[in-house]
Amino acid sequence: MESLINSAEEQQPSSPPGNSWSKQEEINKNETPKCVGGFVLVHAGAGYHSESKAKEYKHVCKRACQRAVDRLKAGALAVEAVAAALVELEDSPFTNAGMGSNLNLSGEIECDASIMDGKSLHYGAVGAISGIKNPVLVANRLLSEAQKGKLSAGRIPPCFLVGRGAHDWAVGHGIPPCPSEKMATKFSLSAYKRNKRKMELAEKMDTGHNHAKKRRQSSETDNGSGCLDTVGAVVVDSEGNVAAAVSSGGLAMKHPGRVGQAAHYGCGCWAENAFNNPYSTAVSTSGIPQHTLYNLLCSRCGEHLIRTMLARECSAALQSEDAHKALLEAMQNKFISSPFLAGEDRVLGGVIVCAAADVWNLRHLKIFRVYWWSSYGVTPQRACVLATCLPKIARRRHTYPDCHLGPFLDSAWPSKAVCVD
Amino acid sequence: MESLINSAEEQQPSSPPGNSWSKQEEINKNETPKCVGGFVLVHAGAGYHSESKAKEYKHVCKRACQRAVDRLKAGALAVEAVAAALVELEDSPFTNAGMGSNLNLSGEIECDASIMDGKSLHYGAVGAISGIKNPVLVANRLLSEAQKGKLSAGRIPPCFLVGRGAHDWAVGHGIPPCPSEKMATKFSLSAYKRNKRKMELAEKMDTGHNHAKKRRQSSETDNGSGCLDTVGAVVVDSEGNVAAAVSSGGLAMKHPGRVGQAAHYGCGCWAENAFNNPYSTAVSTSGIPQHTLYNLLCSRCGEHLIRTMLARECSAALQSEDAHKALLEAMQNKFISSPFLAGEDRVLGGVIVCAAADVWNLRHLKIFRVYWWSSYGVTPQRACVLATCLPKIARRRHTYPDCHLGPFLDSAWPSKAVCVD
Repeated sequence: MESLINSAEEQQPSSPPGNSWSKQEEINKNETPKCVGGFVLVHAGAGYHSESKAKEYKHVCKRACQRAVDRLKAGALAVEAVAAALVELEDSPFTNAGMGSNLNLSGEIECDASIMDGKSLHYGAVGAISGIKNPVLVANRLLSEAQKGKLSAGRIPPCFLVGRGAHDWAVGHGIPPCPSEKMATKFSLSAYKRNKRKMELAEKMDTGHNHAKKRRQSSETDNGSGCLDTVGAVVVDSEGNVAAAVSSGGLAMKHPGRVGQAAHYGCGCWAENAFNNPYSTAVSTSGIPQHTLYNLLCSRCGEHLIRTMLARECSAALQSEDAHKALLEAMQNKFISSPFLAGEDRVLGGVIVCAAADVWNLRHLKIFRVYWWSSYGVTPQRACVLATCLPKIARRRHTYPDCHLGPFLDSAWPSKAVCVD
Repeated sequence: MESLINSAEEQQPSSPPGNSWSKQEEINKNETPKCVGGFVLVHAGAGYHSESKAKEYKHVCKRACQRAVDRLKAGALAVEAVAAALVELEDSPFTNAGMGSNLNLSGEIECDASIMDGKSLHYGAVGAISGIKNPVLVANRLLSEAQKGKLSAGRIPPCFLVGRGAHDWAVGHGIPPCPSEKMATKFSLSAYKRNKRKMELAEKMDTGHNHAKKRRQSSETDNGSGCLDTVGAVVVDSEGNVAAAVSSGGLAMKHPGRVGQAAHYGCGCWAENAFNNPYSTAVSTSGIPQHTLYNLLCSRCGEHLIRTMLARECSAALQSEDAHKALLEAMQNKFISSPFLAGEDRVLGGVIVCAAADVWNLRHLKIFRVYWWSSYGVTPQRACVLATCLPKIARRRHTYPDCHLGPFLDSAWPSKAVCVD
């Protein structure tokens, strides 16, 4: 039986719980161990989604959770479940991943995706791949092939493939190709035409012609157009293994061949079982689209997430006893105020994370932490939280829910969290 | 005036100096500051190079140093000088970078390169790029374009481009294309044919046919064939800025689209001025080709360098007061015995690093550290050190040279270090 926890917009914000992971809240380790089926958290991309599509986003999140839950119930490992969730997110024409992704400067779709398995610590990624409906399946296949060991003649299998080579490898490994024209949707095509006009307009504006007037016109046309970024998920399976994945169509009007944070190791996602660390952690990041100076295109900050290796930094912060404080500090010092982003006028990023302690042997599952943050300017603000109280785990394990429920800065975010019982 | 320090094979091994960066060796900070023109260290790729080509490797290293030195003397920043050194290394038909790179499974050349500027902390990279003689120039151009700020319509410039898109971007930015057939050399083409035969042989051997006999035959034909990996350099300029770069043709017989550590952020190179840290650091890694189980192909461990983020880990270790000890520990705990590489039968990697303290204002340049390590199995061994005593700096600053001169495990490595006076 699974319990679908309400998505963030259906929960009431509350104050952060501080360090609720303290010793007095630890479970009794002599308690009879009881298998918890797992945990799934997905998001359909941060950003300014259209209100008219809110239902769609909720539905796709729910379906993605359900897919992962089904896999977990069938005994799958976290890495398989997280891939299943991503497939559903990619299949939605409303997300900027797989079907319906943003088009690049040449009017083509090129996708990035990556997946990490906390159990084996293997990683698979594809960048700028075209003609494949589910890039995450290619990343996952790279990961699983690497886990099998060396290729013929002792060659080490690749963990990252790009472009045409990635496409051909995928097809050679049984992943069906999908004509690019089928991956574009009415929405993505019209967005491309609109963006192209905006770029031409911006280039004129950059030369100083008719600046104010054009700027106003652009703002008017931008309302409700929708602008989302990388989708992702984190999963914990019944054995306590963690996994994380991300997928993205990347920036609208990006240069062909541009690879964003969704394919960068340590930047898009991170998953690491608790080998020598106290906690198993899984992280999935998303750039937050921002309306640019002239309010023309939605410019994302994938490059900011790359240069600060945000996923890995968040994972490291989660190892602190007071993970909430450490995450805040990491977002402030390693991201917003990072010397790597000095001079950047807008630093924006969001993460979903979960951490689990002592779950390796199923006996001491304590809690999951879920955060979804973003920041504007130099002041950290919690844009939205896709939190879940995980009541079943909490009740069974006599621990407190450790969810960080922040105020909503923007409209509700398309996300769902699921606890498998 | 510059002083070309002898390459490693011309120096006598000595025992490691331990912590020679201790307080008693610090320079007198009241000493009249004297400008040091800079420091350059290059390597032409780790590996089992043919003895017959030893002279060529020495010459190309010398030329690469000279190029960087010329740029530094002309007032260039470290990042420009390191790019100049890489161009020379790429232009050599004997290195596995640019001209004469390994061919992939399809008989094509696809290169990776990246560059990092410690001053701005910007980074540029290209992956699986074809038809460009100097991939590092594309990476460097990406870096410099990113430093200029946003593109039209406020779009954030890319830091990583791959494949055809990278090629087209380069040509669009004035970097001339080079027909792929001109980049292949007689040596790389004959190596491709030989490797293809070996692969076919290995695939037969994998099925168990005639195993021992073929193995012996293969070993015989492999002698002296030459097998090198990623080339790279680290530079400190007269202002104390650091920069690092790497370039590679990647694995021989790799799958098209495979991107190796030379294009991975944090894995191939790292450069970080001392903002809040005690030391400015620059690191360049190289996979060490290994003869495989059947001694057939040279299989490199680029994927190992990726999954452990070796460049960034070494940079972090250099911040320790006893950098020598910290680097040894990092190589042991974060690489050789890393849980990320559990189950891997051979973990091999080399780095060149340099660290400089208090050079930001030119007043307190203390010392450079240079390491070149590799490891076999689970026992760390120093395969070779491309060290320099930097006598001019040492003499002027009244500090001891802090070079780690280890025993040679293999034949001499093609490298040069230069101190600009």
